[in-house]
Amino acid sequence: MKIITISREFGSGGRELGKRIADILGFDYYDSEIISAVAKKSGVDENYIENVLDNHGWQDIPISFVGTIGSAGYMNASAVKLLVQQKKVIEEIAALGKDCVIVGRNADVILSEYKPFNIFVCAELSAKIERCMQRAKSDEKITERKLARKIKKIDRMRANTRTVLSGQGWGERHDYHLTVNTTDWQIKELAKSVAQMADDWFKIER
Amino acid sequence: MKIITISREFGSGGRELGKRIADILGFDYYDSEIISAVAKKSGVDENYIENVLDNHGWQDIPISFVGTIGSAGYMNASAVKLLVQQKKVIEEIAALGKDCVIVGRNADVILSEYKPFNIFVCAELSAKIERCMQRAKSDEKITERKLARKIKKIDRMRANTRTVLSGQGWGERHDYHLTVNTTDWQIKELAKSVAQMADDWFKIER
Repeated sequence: MKIITISREFGSGGRELGKRIADILGFDYYDSEIISAVAKKSGVDENYIENVLDNHGWQDIPISFVGTIGSAGYMNASAVKLLVQQKKVIEEIAALGKDCVIVGRNADVILSEYKPFNIFVCAELSAKIERCMQRAKSDEKITERKLARKIKKIDRMRANTRTVLSGQGWGERHDYHLTVNTTDWQIKELAKSVAQMADDWFKIER
Repeated sequence: MKIITISREFGSGGRELGKRIADILGFDYYDSEIISAVAKKSGVDENYIENVLDNHGWQDIPISFVGTIGSAGYMNASAVKLLVQQKKVIEEIAALGKDCVIVGRNADVILSEYKPFNIFVCAELSAKIERCMQRAKSDEKITERKLARKIKKIDRMRANTRTVLSGQGWGERHDYHLTVNTTDWQIKELAKSVAQMADDWFKIER
């Protein structure tokens, strides 16, 4: 089984990169919004995770820009419970035994025993703001300044969560096989190169 | 003109990666030992840099493991003079107008106006020690502990030099297009993927 994990700065295009790599390689695709949504529901119904994964119903869970921004809110009292549930979801994804790309939620740490190919995606702040502005719907009013604060806040939280889970820093080059800066790329082109690289990497005997 | 720069942690295989990428793409190849050697000689004879570059005589300058370790010694009184001379050498390389790979000596900073494709190469300490031990000749007695200290010292100096030249940190992900961790790779395989990626990158219209 081949697992590619993608960790990323908010707005860097990591999710689009992951989706495209999954499409190119024919891998299943999971991202942090899917995992969070499943984990939240699983708090209500213990069989939910299993049902959802078995039926691949998670493909239908709506993902919105608002939802992504909103995910910044979960690091409160119920944060630990949600982290545990997310971890369980990620472990169940791996247990399916199918090649997949998992974006976010520290899948690289949680699934380290599977020897995943780990990618970190970053970009310059200006590029991240531009990407977020493009993704935002016209009826979502958000200023660049507010967005910059939001980006930094979400990344700070991601860093904190990683430290809680692994004791490691976040985005540190030694923790990933590859770190890509999307600032000067088109994600579509980058995805081809990275998919090829990952494919080559899985062929190496270890 | 296409320029690929490679910055790297000592012992990470960055030089081998650079040489292989240059071979694959048919680019000229320059590394830090070549640049240092030319810069040192240029202090004696002002025409030396030009002569060497014109005649491609730098291909014949011997590179030894001892020389690499020895390069740790230059950050003393004459450091600034040498940095200026190295910078001049790098600028003259670019002025040749030929596609090239340049390893080390902050070529990414010095040649930023040429929009090079910038790569940072890292590896886990254990992998770097192993690589250095393999490269060392049998008559060079060096313990792993001593080597680990040396690796850290050289990297600290590289970081300092970069800060002097650019005011930037060293190895920070936003400063490079790509950061590769060679720990789990074979450099030969990695070189193919990275060369392809760089080649694709140069094709993007900007």
